[in-house]
Amino acid sequence: VKVLITTLPFAEYDQRPLQLLGAAKVDYVINPLGRKVKPHELNDLIADTDILIAGTEQITDEVMGHARNLKLITRVGIGLDSVDLVSARRRGIEVCYTPDAPSPAVAELTIGFIISLLRSIHLSNAGMRERKWQRYFGRRLSEVTIGIIGVGRIGSRVIQHLKGFECTRILVNDVSKTIELKEHPACKIEWVPKDIIYKEADVISLHVPLNSSTRNMITMRELYLMKRDSCLINTARGGVVNEQDLFEVMRKGHLGGAAIDVFEEEPYVGNLVDIERCILSAHMGSMSVDCRSKMEIEATEEVIRFIRGRPLMSKVPDEEYEHKYQS
Amino acid sequence: VKVLITTLPFAEYDQRPLQLLGAAKVDYVINPLGRKVKPHELNDLIADTDILIAGTEQITDEVMGHARNLKLITRVGIGLDSVDLVSARRRGIEVCYTPDAPSPAVAELTIGFIISLLRSIHLSNAGMRERKWQRYFGRRLSEVTIGIIGVGRIGSRVIQHLKGFECTRILVNDVSKTIELKEHPACKIEWVPKDIIYKEADVISLHVPLNSSTRNMITMRELYLMKRDSCLINTARGGVVNEQDLFEVMRKGHLGGAAIDVFEEEPYVGNLVDIERCILSAHMGSMSVDCRSKMEIEATEEVIRFIRGRPLMSKVPDEEYEHKYQS
Repeated sequence: VKVLITTLPFAEYDQRPLQLLGAAKVDYVINPLGRKVKPHELNDLIADTDILIAGTEQITDEVMGHARNLKLITRVGIGLDSVDLVSARRRGIEVCYTPDAPSPAVAELTIGFIISLLRSIHLSNAGMRERKWQRYFGRRLSEVTIGIIGVGRIGSRVIQHLKGFECTRILVNDVSKTIELKEHPACKIEWVPKDIIYKEADVISLHVPLNSSTRNMITMRELYLMKRDSCLINTARGGVVNEQDLFEVMRKGHLGGAAIDVFEEEPYVGNLVDIERCILSAHMGSMSVDCRSKMEIEATEEVIRFIRGRPLMSKVPDEEYEHKYQS
Repeated sequence: VKVLITTLPFAEYDQRPLQLLGAAKVDYVINPLGRKVKPHELNDLIADTDILIAGTEQITDEVMGHARNLKLITRVGIGLDSVDLVSARRRGIEVCYTPDAPSPAVAELTIGFIISLLRSIHLSNAGMRERKWQRYFGRRLSEVTIGIIGVGRIGSRVIQHLKGFECTRILVNDVSKTIELKEHPACKIEWVPKDIIYKEADVISLHVPLNSSTRNMITMRELYLMKRDSCLINTARGGVVNEQDLFEVMRKGHLGGAAIDVFEEEPYVGNLVDIERCILSAHMGSMSVDCRSKMEIEATEEVIRFIRGRPLMSKVPDEEYEHKYQS
C-alpha cells in the first residue's frame, strides 16, 4: 500500500503517526516539496498513491484523474473546501477528516487575536522596535459588542472562552438556526442577520467553512458596513474574506484592525503585509502540539482501519457533499 | 488651589476629570512635557502645586522638598513604588491611589500576552512582513503549567480568566498566604515557593508591586532556573525583572518568549528591542478606555473631596508605608 502525505508539518513533534504507519508496514512518502503542493505538482506526486493523507492543497477532479489507484483521502483537519467531494464520490474514493481535533487550538488563537487587536499589542510591539513609545488606548471585552459568524465547533468554543471575560453582548449568526447556545447570566447572546453583525459589532470573528455560500462573504460592501474602528478576525478560510477588498479599505483607514491567519493562496504573498494594523499569521489555527498530534493520529488511524478493512470512524457526512463548493 | 497633573494621557477619551476640576474652579496644569517627567524636572514644575495628580514618575523626598505647598498626591493607578511614602508622611502630605480600577485591563492584557507567546503570534506576524511563511507550533493553555507570582487584585483576575481555558495546573505564590482562591473542578491550584514556579511553570506571570523585597526578584539565577522554552510576562513593574539579565539570557537562546510591558526607565530605550521573541509594549496594562477613565475620575474625585474638606476614599493604607521600597 502506497501512502502519500502532503500535509505539513507531519509527525514533527509526535512520532506516533509514523509509528502507526511503520507498524502496518505501509510504504509512505512525506511531501518532498516542503510546502503546500500545487495541483499540477500533485498530479505527478499522486500517480501511484493508494491513500492520501491530505493538507489543504487542492484535490481537484483533474488530480484525482491522475491518481489511478487512489481509494482514500484522509484530511488532516476540518475544512473540505480543497476536496472535490462530488468527483471523489463518482470515482469511488472515500473521504474522511478530523472535524473535532483542531477546534480548541483555533478558538484559543482567536481569543489571542481579539485581545491583541483590542489592546494594540502588535502596534506597540512594532513601535517599540523603532524606539516609539506610544501608550495605545484599548478596549476590554466587556466594553465591546462581539460578533461571531458561524457557531459550530469552533465558534461556540470562542463564545465559551469569551464568557470568562464578562462579555456583555455577543451577536451570533449561523446557517443552522437550531444550535443551542448556553446563555450566561451577565452575557446576552443575540441571533441576528449578518448585516446587523457587520453594523453593530466592534469585533467580528468568522468561523464558517469555505463553500459556495461563504466564498467572498466579506467584500467591500460588508467591510464598509462595519464600524470604522471595528476589528475583523479570520481564522476560518482564505476566500471567505476578499483579501484585495480588505487591503483597499484598510489602506484608506477603515477598520481599527484585522487578524488574518488564512489566505486564498498559501504561502501568502499579498499586499496586506503593508498594513501594520493587520496581524498576519501563517495558517496556525490548529497548530498547537496537542491538536496537531490529535489530527495527524486520527487521520492516520483511518488509514490503518481502511487497510485492515475495518469501518472508518470519521467519514465526511453526506450533507457536506451537498454544500460542496463548486469551483 | 493649584493642581498639577503629571500622568499621561489625561482626559483624552473621557472629559469628565477636567469637567470635575472645572466645576470646582480649580486651577490646573497638565504635564507640559508630553512624556514621563524626570525628578529634576518635577522639582521645577511642582513649586507652587497644592495637589498632584500623579503618574508613575518618581516623587522623591527632594521633589517634595521643592513642593512647599503640596498637601495631596493622588496616584492614577495602583503602584506606589514611585512615591516616597515615608517622606510624604513626615511632611504631612496625604497620599491616595486607585487600587481597583486598573486590574481588569491589566489582567486582560496579560491573557493576550500569554496566548500571543504560546502561539507565536508576534513571530509569525513579523515573519510574514519579510515574506517568511512559517507555521509555528504552539501550546494550548490546558497543556501547560501556569505560574502566577502575586495573586492580589490582578493575579487573581488572571486566574479567573484562565479557568475559562480549561487550564489544568496553576502554581501560585504570594507574600500573603491567606488569600483564598476559588478552585475549579478541572484546574488544580497549588501554593508553592517561587523557585518551584521558576522550575516547573511553562508560563510565568508577575503581579507583584515593586518594593524592597521584589526589586530584582528575577535575575540571572531565577531566569536560568526557568525551563528553556518557558515564557515570562511582566505587566507589574519594571525593576522586578532585571532587564539586562533578561536580555543576556534571551540572547543566548534561553526562554521561549517574554512579554514586557513595564520598564525600569520609561520610555524604554534598552536592548530588548533586539530580541524578536520578546514582545514589548509601552506600559499599556491599564490603558483600556474604561479602566483609564475610572482611574482618572477616581483620582480627581479625591482632589474634589480634599478641597471640600471631605474624607478621602482611597487613602494609601498603613501597611504600604511599611513595605515602602527604600531607594
